[in-house]
Amino acid sequence: MPSSVKALGQPRSSSPGMVPNTCCCTSAAVRRRLPVLAWLPNYSLQWLKMDFIAGLSVGLTVIPQALAYAEVAGLPPQYGLYSAFMGCFVYLFLGTSRDVTLGPTAIMSLLVSFYTFHEPAYAVLLAFLSGCIQLAMGFLHLGFLLDFISCPVIKGFTSAAAVTIGFGQIKNLLGLQNIPRQFFLQVYHTFRSIGETRVGDAVLGLVCMVLLLVLKLMRDHVLPLHPEMPPGVRLSHGLVWVATTARNALVVFFAALVAYSFEVTGYQPFMLTEETAEGLPPVWTPPFSMTTCVYHLFSLASENNYRIDANQELLAIGLTNVLGSLVSSYPVTGSFGRTAVNAQSGVCTPAGGLVTGALVLLSLAYLTSQFHYIPKAALAAVIIMAVAPLFDTKIFRTLWRVKRLDLLPLCVTFLLCFWEVQYGILAGALVSLFLLLHDVARPGTQVSEGPVIVLQLASGLHFPAVESLREAILSRALEVSPPRCVVLECTHVCSIDYTVVLGLSDLLQDFHKQGASLVFVGLQVPVLRVLLSADLQGFQYFSTVEEAEKYLRQEPGTQPYHISEDSLPEHKVALLKA
Amino acid sequence: MPSSVKALGQPRSSSPGMVPNTCCCTSAAVRRRLPVLAWLPNYSLQWLKMDFIAGLSVGLTVIPQALAYAEVAGLPPQYGLYSAFMGCFVYLFLGTSRDVTLGPTAIMSLLVSFYTFHEPAYAVLLAFLSGCIQLAMGFLHLGFLLDFISCPVIKGFTSAAAVTIGFGQIKNLLGLQNIPRQFFLQVYHTFRSIGETRVGDAVLGLVCMVLLLVLKLMRDHVLPLHPEMPPGVRLSHGLVWVATTARNALVVFFAALVAYSFEVTGYQPFMLTEETAEGLPPVWTPPFSMTTCVYHLFSLASENNYRIDANQELLAIGLTNVLGSLVSSYPVTGSFGRTAVNAQSGVCTPAGGLVTGALVLLSLAYLTSQFHYIPKAALAAVIIMAVAPLFDTKIFRTLWRVKRLDLLPLCVTFLLCFWEVQYGILAGALVSLFLLLHDVARPGTQVSEGPVIVLQLASGLHFPAVESLREAILSRALEVSPPRCVVLECTHVCSIDYTVVLGLSDLLQDFHKQGASLVFVGLQVPVLRVLLSADLQGFQYFSTVEEAEKYLRQEPGTQPYHISEDSLPEHKVALLKA
Repeated sequence: MPSSVKALGQPRSSSPGMVPNTCCCTSAAVRRRLPVLAWLPNYSLQWLKMDFIAGLSVGLTVIPQALAYAEVAGLPPQYGLYSAFMGCFVYLFLGTSRDVTLGPTAIMSLLVSFYTFHEPAYAVLLAFLSGCIQLAMGFLHLGFLLDFISCPVIKGFTSAAAVTIGFGQIKNLLGLQNIPRQFFLQVYHTFRSIGETRVGDAVLGLVCMVLLLVLKLMRDHVLPLHPEMPPGVRLSHGLVWVATTARNALVVFFAALVAYSFEVTGYQPFMLTEETAEGLPPVWTPPFSMTTCVYHLFSLASENNYRIDANQELLAIGLTNVLGSLVSSYPVTGSFGRTAVNAQSGVCTPAGGLVTGALVLLSLAYLTSQFHYIPKAALAAVIIMAVAPLFDTKIFRTLWRVKRLDLLPLCVTFLLCFWEVQYGILAGALVSLFLLLHDVARPGTQVSEGPVIVLQLASGLHFPAVESLREAILSRALEVSPPRCVVLECTHVCSIDYTVVLGLSDLLQDFHKQGASLVFVGLQVPVLRVLLSADLQGFQYFSTVEEAEKYLRQEPGTQPYHISEDSLPEHKVALLKA
Repeated sequence: MPSSVKALGQPRSSSPGMVPNTCCCTSAAVRRRLPVLAWLPNYSLQWLKMDFIAGLSVGLTVIPQALAYAEVAGLPPQYGLYSAFMGCFVYLFLGTSRDVTLGPTAIMSLLVSFYTFHEPAYAVLLAFLSGCIQLAMGFLHLGFLLDFISCPVIKGFTSAAAVTIGFGQIKNLLGLQNIPRQFFLQVYHTFRSIGETRVGDAVLGLVCMVLLLVLKLMRDHVLPLHPEMPPGVRLSHGLVWVATTARNALVVFFAALVAYSFEVTGYQPFMLTEETAEGLPPVWTPPFSMTTCVYHLFSLASENNYRIDANQELLAIGLTNVLGSLVSSYPVTGSFGRTAVNAQSGVCTPAGGLVTGALVLLSLAYLTSQFHYIPKAALAAVIIMAVAPLFDTKIFRTLWRVKRLDLLPLCVTFLLCFWEVQYGILAGALVSLFLLLHDVARPGTQVSEGPVIVLQLASGLHFPAVESLREAILSRALEVSPPRCVVLECTHVCSIDYTVVLGLSDLLQDFHKQGASLVFVGLQVPVLRVLLSADLQGFQYFSTVEEAEKYLRQEPGTQPYHISEDSLPEHKVALLKA
C-alpha cells in the first residue's frame, strides 16, 4: 500500500521521455495540459515493448476486477467493463504520471453504491456530474482544496472502506442470500445466517482466496528477469511472472471453468453472475434531468485519494468521467492496486493504457456471454484480496509512535465512515482543521521567568492567537506586584496582521499605564515594517535578548534601536543605534 | 472609538479594589465567577462618591439613548428603558471590568429590528434565547470562537451598522413619513421624498445635533477639575462638566420642553414619540413557543463586539438577557459609548451600575407620561451623534498603510453588511479564515540558489503545506539536470504532523532515486523527535547550514549527526557526532 501511494504520488518523477518543462510561455502551458506532447516525439521501440507488457498485465487485472467491482456498486457486471477503458485513452493524453491507471475502483464502487439504487442510469449520471465538477475544479485550480484533507483522514477512510467492502463480500463468498447492504445490518444478518452457508460457494471461494494469496506471495518473491540467466530459467521465470501478474484473470478463469463443467453435468453448486448484456456499451446521452444526487457529488469529488499535481489529475479524471458517461461508465478514479501492477511491470509511458483499453473492449465484444459462468464466490475472493492491503493496521501503531494527536482524526474518520461515508470524511477533515486552527490560535510559548520575563513565541502569530497571548503576558507581568517587564522574542514570527498589531498596541498601553515596559526582540524585517508603519506608542525593539534585558535593568549605555520606516532596506535591516 | 474599545478590552486592568487572583483552588474559581467578591470587602467612601457620579452620568446618557434605540429596534420607546436596568444589576455581581456598562445599544437594536416585525414579544423572546445561547457558550468556554472574528471584520461591521443606523434616522430628522426599513429602499425613498421635509422637525433636529456637537467638543476640551482651583472656577467647571456629560438628557429635555410649549398653544410642528405605557415593565414569562427566530440567534451571538475574557463576559451578558427577558427587555450587550462615559467619569467599581439602574427605574416609574412630548427629531439627533464615532474612516487609511491584505475582509464585511448583516459578518469571517489558512498552507520560503539549494521555511509547517513544499523542492532540485542537493532549514518549524512526516519521507525517497541528497538543518527538539520516531530512510540532519553544505560538497570530515530517539533529552539536544 505505501508503495502504491508512492507510485501515485510521483507524477513528476521523470520517465525517460518526460522532458522537464524548463521552457516557458504558451508551448509550456500546452505541454503542461497535454503531457503526451512531451514524451510522444521520443517514443522508442524498447518503450513500446515494455508498455505492451505492462498494458497487458493491467488489462488482465482490470477485467476480473471490473466485473467484481460492478457487484460492489450494485450494478450489472458489464458496467464495470464499460467503465474500464475510457480512462486508459484519456489518460494517454492528459496523464502526468506513467504509472497511474484510471478505472473502476473498489472504494469508488462502494461510494457509487449508495446512490445507484441498482439503477445503472443513476450511476451513469453520477459519472457525468462528478466529471463536470472535477473538470470545473481542475480549471479553477481548486485542487489545493485536497491539501486540507490530511493523511490520517485518508487512511481512516480507506481502512473503513476496505472493511466495509471486504465484509460485504462475505455473503458472496459463503453463498448467503438476502443480506441487506447497510453495514451494521449486514454484519448482523451475515452472522445470523452463517448456518445457511452453501458448501460449494464456500469451498470455491476459499480455494480462490488461497490461490490468489499464494500467487501474490510468489509475485512478491520471484526474482526479476535477468539477461544473463540461461534461457530455460528465463522461460520458467517468465511463465511464473505472467501467471502471478495475471493471477486475478487466471483464478476467475479457473473458477468459471469449474462452474461451466458443473453446468454441463446439469448440477450447479455455485451462485453465478447475472446474465451480462452482450457487446460494446450503448452510446447515449446521460439523463440530464435526474439531478437528485447532485448534492452527494461534492463529497465524492473530495474522496479521491491521489494527492499530487491535483489540478491536472482532476482534469484527466473529470474528462474520463464525462466521456465515460457517454458509454455508460460509472464514476472512476485512480486505482492503487493496478497502478502498482503497472509500475512493477516496468511501464515507460501512459501508452500502456492503449493495450489495456483495447483488451477491455475486446473482452466486451467477445467474452460477455461467458461472464455468466463466473461464480460470485470467485469475484468475492478477487475483491477481498484487492481491498485487504487498503486496511492499514500499521497506521495505528505508527501514529501512536510518531504523532498521537493525529490518531484523533484517523479514528473519527474510521468509525464514522461505517455509519455514513461522507459524514466520516467531513468529520475527520473538520477535526484535522480544528487541530490545525488550534495550533495557530494557541501557539506554544517558552517563558523564562526572572526579574525580566522573556517570552519566546514558538511559531507565527496570527489574529486568533493575539488575545490569549495578551492574557498570558498580562497575567504573568502586570497582575503581580510589582509589575514586571517583558521581552517578547519574535524570531519565529514571519508576518503579522492588523488584529495582532492592535493587540500589541493595547498591550503596550497596558504596560505604559502600570509603569512597566514591553520590548521586542528578533523581529523579522516584514514584521518590523508593519509595526513601524502602525506607529505604536512606546514601541521599542532590540536585536538580542541580552541587550533588551540590560536595557530593562536600566544599565547605562543600552538604548533601543530607532529606525524610520523609510530607511528599512528590502532584505536586511540596517539597524542604527539612536 | 479606539478609546472605548480599549476600555472594553481592559477587564483585567486592576482597579484599586480588584485583587489579582494569585491564590488557587475553589475560592479563586468562585471569585473568578463572582468578581464582586474581590472588590466589595475593600469598598470605601471615596469610591462610593466616584461611582455615584459615574452612575449618574451613565444614567443621564442611557435614558435618552434607550428611548431612541427602541425606535431603531422598531419597538415602543419604553422597551428601551425596560432593557436598560437589568444589565446594571447583573454586571455588578458578574462583571470583570469596572468600566463596561450593559444595556441597549444602537447596533444590537439594528440587529433586533430585523426579527421583531414591530412585535415586542419577538424581541423579548430573542433576549431570552440569545441569553441562553450566551450562557451556554460561556459555560462551555466557547468564548474562544470569538477569537476567530478578526478586527477588520468587526470594524467593517460596526462601520456599516453606523451608516445603516445613522441614515435610518434621516427620515426622523427631516420629518419624512412612509419610508421603508430596508437600507437600499430607504436611501432611494429618502432622497425621493426629500422635498416633503417638515420645517419644524428639520430645524429642531439640526439644532439638537449642533447642540450635541458643541457640548461634546466642550466635554473633550474642558480642563479636569483640580483641587487647587479657586472655588468659583471649580463651580463653573463642575457645571460645565455636568452639562456636557448629561448632554443627551439636556438636549432631549430641551426639545421636549419646546414641543410641550407648542402643544399648549395647540399647534404641533414636530413628530412626537408614540404614547408610552406607564410604569414599570410587566413581569412575565417569555412566550416559549415562538421559536421561529432561533436560527438567527447564532449570528446574533457572534456579533457582540467586546473581545476580552470572553467566557465570563458571555456569562454576564447571557444572564442579563435571560433575566431581562422576564421584564420585557430586548437583547442587550456592552455599550461602547456609555462605557467611555463611565471611564471618563472616574468610575471605581461596577457599583456605579446601581445608580444607573435606579435612575432608569425611577424614570420608568415617574416620567413615562412625559416621554410622549419628546420629538422624534431630537431622538434622531441623539442616535446620529451616538453612532457617528462608530463609523471609522481612519481604519481604511490605517489598513492601507499597515496591512493592505486586511482591507479585503474589511471591505467584504462592510459592503455585504448593507445587504444582510449576518451574511456580511459570515463572509468577512470566512475571508479572514481563508487568508489565515492560505498563510498556513502556503508558507513563505527563502531560497538561496547555488550548487546546493538552501531553502528556509519562513514559518511553521502544517499538513496543508507539505505538497506545495514538495513541488517547490522537486521543481528546483530534481527537474533540472543534473539533480541538485537541498538543505531544508527548519529553524522556524516548532511542530509537525504525520502528513508532513509522510510528505518528507516521500521527498527523501525521490531524492534517493535520483542520487541526490536532501538534508535538514536547525530542527527543534520536538520536530527532531517526531522525525526520528518515524524512522525515515536516508534522514540526515546538521546543526548549521555551513556544515550541511560542506557535507554535500563531500568535503572530508563532515558527517551528519547520528542520535537515537531514546537518547534525546527533554529540553536540549545532546548532538553526538557519528
